[in-house]
Amino acid sequence: MQPFQRIAITGKPGDQAVIDTIRKLIHELDGRGLTVSLDEAIGDATGASATHPVASLDSLAPRIDLLIVVGGDGTLLHAGKQVAAHQVPVLGINRGRLGFLVDVSPDRFDEIIRVIDGDCRVEERLVLEARVVDDDGIVAHAPAINEVVLQRWNTARMIEFETWIDGEPCNRHRSDGLIICTPTGSTAYALSGGGPIMHPGIDAVALVPISPHTLSNRPLVISAGSHIEVRVQPQSIEQVHVSCDSQTNLSLTADGRLDIVAYPHALRLVHPPGHRYFDILRAKLHWGDGAPPC
Amino acid sequence: MQPFQRIAITGKPGDQAVIDTIRKLIHELDGRGLTVSLDEAIGDATGASATHPVASLDSLAPRIDLLIVVGGDGTLLHAGKQVAAHQVPVLGINRGRLGFLVDVSPDRFDEIIRVIDGDCRVEERLVLEARVVDDDGIVAHAPAINEVVLQRWNTARMIEFETWIDGEPCNRHRSDGLIICTPTGSTAYALSGGGPIMHPGIDAVALVPISPHTLSNRPLVISAGSHIEVRVQPQSIEQVHVSCDSQTNLSLTADGRLDIVAYPHALRLVHPPGHRYFDILRAKLHWGDGAPPC
Amino acid sequence: MQPFQRIAITGKPGDQAVIDTIRKLIHELDGRGLTVSLDEAIGDATGASATHPVASLDSLAPRIDLLIVVGGDGTLLHAGKQVAAHQVPVLGINRGRLGFLVDVSPDRFDEIIRVIDGDCRVEERLVLEARVVDDDGIVAHAPAINEVVLQRWNTARMIEFETWIDGEPCNRHRSDGLIICTPTGSTAYALSGGGPIMHPGIDAVALVPISPHTLSNRPLVISAGSHIEVRVQPQSIEQVHVSCDSQTNLSLTADGRLDIVAYPHALRLVHPPGHRYFDILRAKLHWGDGAPPC
Amino acid sequence: MQPFQRIAITGKPGDQAVIDTIRKLIHELDGRGLTVSLDEAIGDATGASATHPVASLDSLAPRIDLLIVVGGDGTLLHAGKQVAAHQVPVLGINRGRLGFLVDVSPDRFDEIIRVIDGDCRVEERLVLEARVVDDDGIVAHAPAINEVVLQRWNTARMIEFETWIDGEPCNRHRSDGLIICTPTGSTAYALSGGGPIMHPGIDAVALVPISPHTLSNRPLVISAGSHIEVRVQPQSIEQVHVSCDSQTNLSLTADGRLDIVAYPHALRLVHPPGHRYFDILRAKLHWGDGAPPC
Repeated sequence: MQPFQRIAITGKPGDQAVIDTIRKLIHELDGRGLTVSLDEAIGDATGASATHPVASLDSLAPRIDLLIVVGGDGTLLHAGKQVAAHQVPVLGINRGRLGFLVDVSPDRFDEIIRVIDGDCRVEERLVLEARVVDDDGIVAHAPAINEVVLQRWNTARMIEFETWIDGEPCNRHRSDGLIICTPTGSTAYALSGGGPIMHPGIDAVALVPISPHTLSNRPLVISAGSHIEVRVQPQSIEQVHVSCDSQTNLSLTADGRLDIVAYPHALRLVHPPGHRYFDILRAKLHWGDGAPPC
Repeated sequence: MQPFQRIAITGKPGDQAVIDTIRKLIHELDGRGLTVSLDEAIGDATGASATHPVASLDSLAPRIDLLIVVGGDGTLLHAGKQVAAHQVPVLGINRGRLGFLVDVSPDRFDEIIRVIDGDCRVEERLVLEARVVDDDGIVAHAPAINEVVLQRWNTARMIEFETWIDGEPCNRHRSDGLIICTPTGSTAYALSGGGPIMHPGIDAVALVPISPHTLSNRPLVISAGSHIEVRVQPQSIEQVHVSCDSQTNLSLTADGRLDIVAYPHALRLVHPPGHRYFDILRAKLHWGDGAPPC
Repeated sequence: MQPFQRIAITGKPGDQAVIDTIRKLIHELDGRGLTVSLDEAIGDATGASATHPVASLDSLAPRIDLLIVVGGDGTLLHAGKQVAAHQVPVLGINRGRLGFLVDVSPDRFDEIIRVIDGDCRVEERLVLEARVVDDDGIVAHAPAINEVVLQRWNTARMIEFETWIDGEPCNRHRSDGLIICTPTGSTAYALSGGGPIMHPGIDAVALVPISPHTLSNRPLVISAGSHIEVRVQPQSIEQVHVSCDSQTNLSLTADGRLDIVAYPHALRLVHPPGHRYFDILRAKLHWGDGAPPC
Repeated sequence: MQPFQRIAITGKPGDQAVIDTIRKLIHELDGRGLTVSLDEAIGDATGASATHPVASLDSLAPRIDLLIVVGGDGTLLHAGKQVAAHQVPVLGINRGRLGFLVDVSPDRFDEIIRVIDGDCRVEERLVLEARVVDDDGIVAHAPAINEVVLQRWNTARMIEFETWIDGEPCNRHRSDGLIICTPTGSTAYALSGGGPIMHPGIDAVALVPISPHTLSNRPLVISAGSHIEVRVQPQSIEQVHVSCDSQTNLSLTADGRLDIVAYPHALRLVHPPGHRYFDILRAKLHWGDGAPPC
């Protein structure tokens, strides 16, 4: 790939290790003559606001060709959604502990530099869009990189809803809710709910029921191109909550309809040359501990 | 679609209800002037061998444009693999109890006739190929419509093996075995093993561990285009068994290597016009039954 | 057993079938010269308040030797807790659909009469007590026949808490919550959460984690005599909710401590002579459908 | 407790670390003037056969008041069953890696000495007995500390059998088999099969189905005093295998009946003073690890 030239940096606010890494990054990138800008969320904390442009990721997105995120997977999810529509590649640097998404160690500046020099691989990750719909059309919408969760809220009782896939009735649910996850999200909340791990290379979405009343109501994997419709029963509307990546909330209308479709833009994750998905999976899930595959 | 003209019929041997349905079918198809042949497995039992060609499905396959299977899902799996390489569409008629694959009731001759008249939908189902490999190449191979199962055999102890995906190490397993299933097989044995349900429309394969020692060794969904390699530890070779659809067995060599790849031909399932996948899923899994839980 | 003499009746309010059954019951019991009183929750609806004593279950409990509940399992849970401290046996009559607890059909008046005549079996079911505790002692408490549930509330994020058993540290949890269930509750919400079925005859309690972050955090069965202590992390206190049988709510104090111990009184369930636990389990869980054990 | 005086030692054969630990143990115990004897399985390897009695555990059992086992959990299971009938307490020393049963480190000779001096706790663990039964009575029987497993053998197809508890029909099974485990065995094979963890203090047994065809066929916990009867369908008899602790095999007769009851003697496990069950559970299952999930 071409080396990256115009780089924005963001990170988890209020974390000194993150600030330290970002300062080191700025110094390194400045030294290489690159154009560096900063997300306003961390601009002041880095002390670089006098010397570098500071703006919202939204406004920076059209003018950069790489976003570096320093923090945890949650930080990357938050930032990634703000730049995905502009197809900006995103590089995730963790704070010393491997993440599923922030897979580069702050101690490996050599890897970071190689990536910036263009020695990297860009991987496209499916993003979903949750849409609250009523008879007038789309009332509210939000992207989700990991998952859309519909769950009971302010009630100790089960909620009732139906799922429809591409216009056909799929299932009638009585449960604590439903997780609709991407392959990226399959190793997050959906895994705790009993869902399968899905390789990012498959074009699929999983519907993972949360504590379903019917024991045969098992996780279901469908095409990422599917139109998923959730219709909440009127008596459950007030007890239902919808969130995207545990970060953005959506309120249902009286109709109780929620649509989930593929977001038109993928998240473009940047990995160093040696990156292998299963290495991360093994490390994070402690697979084959004590005896790693040779 | 064009109406079907040259039709072969097979069925579960030794089942009088199957024979009755086949006789009725022959009578009906004869009356419509169609070319009807019979699988040798059931030819004699139907009493039609004097009047109709009887041969192995293998030899009939190149000369027919539809295969009708009367029986259970197991009967269709067995027959389907014999004609898949010739891309012969397969229609499954059950014996009065709905199957996942034999989804037409013998009481619905109207549906059967509509299908034969071309009023139908042909759905392509992924088929896998299991290959025993050693340094000289492929030693043995067999197709699988539902799943390839590698499992312990003649031992009460766990077996040990590694999985490699597209040449990269995936996991080291200590378990009772591994199910590698297609979307079609996801509602069969793999479901009992804790695997997800996969819609036939996704191009994916699931690796479902059987009673894994490591609790984080969860079902994994990967692209159907993946090259899956299983390497059995030498000390486990004698205690390992490989089968396809619980019908065909393969013996590992001393190398202990098993490859699983997509079979070059899909199974072409024929459905009546009103067919909907989720209707069958709901019926078979008792989803949304008035009376929970099931 | 001695025939029952002083009988109170309660039922699910606002259900005509329940009212009809209760009226028939009153008529039958009056005819046998028994002392019949009514729960105020349904007294007026039955039209019997002019002729029979009507009072709260609380005040009736010391003066009756049998409580008949007409409704669903939830109705019996609610009523059962009000009379358990007085060791009043409880007979559950369903509304035409078998429950786990209301196991007598309204169509089987012969069975009901045999029970009243003393031809029955009384089974003791473990009851739990949830206690909110701070440095001054027990702040609030409530009994639970099925389960005590501690769960996240008004947040889309996991909650963090620790469990201590008999004064020893058990586990540190990051999850959606924890279900602490009796054998009776093991076929209710805990089953949806992945817990085991526990026969009412065992003196045990299960701790079933809800969507735990750590995959090895599995259901744990301990002695019913255990002192279970849950310590919620300060940052999670506001996002935690405690309920008993989905009917009674308890608020944690700033300390975040919840104790669960055995309630001093069992629920005394009355069954007709032929009652067998596994028959109900099989019927409710559709075990061995199509081919019942002979 | 009284200090132990007559001590037998056994260990995993063919493991140099085990031999080293045993030699050190002999030296230490000799120095304290105790009576030390050796299991014939390891007597020669230790080089102590000239100076110490060597015999089978069977014959040593009536004459010792402590058995020390050096090895893994499997070694202790094997040895423990040979002395349980004589109520000999058993102390397990691992080979450097914690086991569920061999919970004392070979590096902690201070702990070992304290135990021998009587500063210890003896815990009783439930043992099961598997009995092959026909019309003439008990044909074969064997004890099981962890579990009795009934499983399919030499077949790729499901087996069919019924379970009866205390003379009442429980369930009709179509599956790969059934694990009947003690609390001790609940963290072994049964855990891989989806069973709950059971504290050793509860008097219960779990029935854990292996890959059951019916999704509602969930793990079932019943009283340890129950009489469990398994009746294998005639067509499955040849394809069924019964084993105890993966160490002892039993052959069914044509009747296909297997009984499981509590063994009359418990395994008496000896622990050092500081021993806490949940500490071992946390360590073995990686509960509460800083780094999720595992």
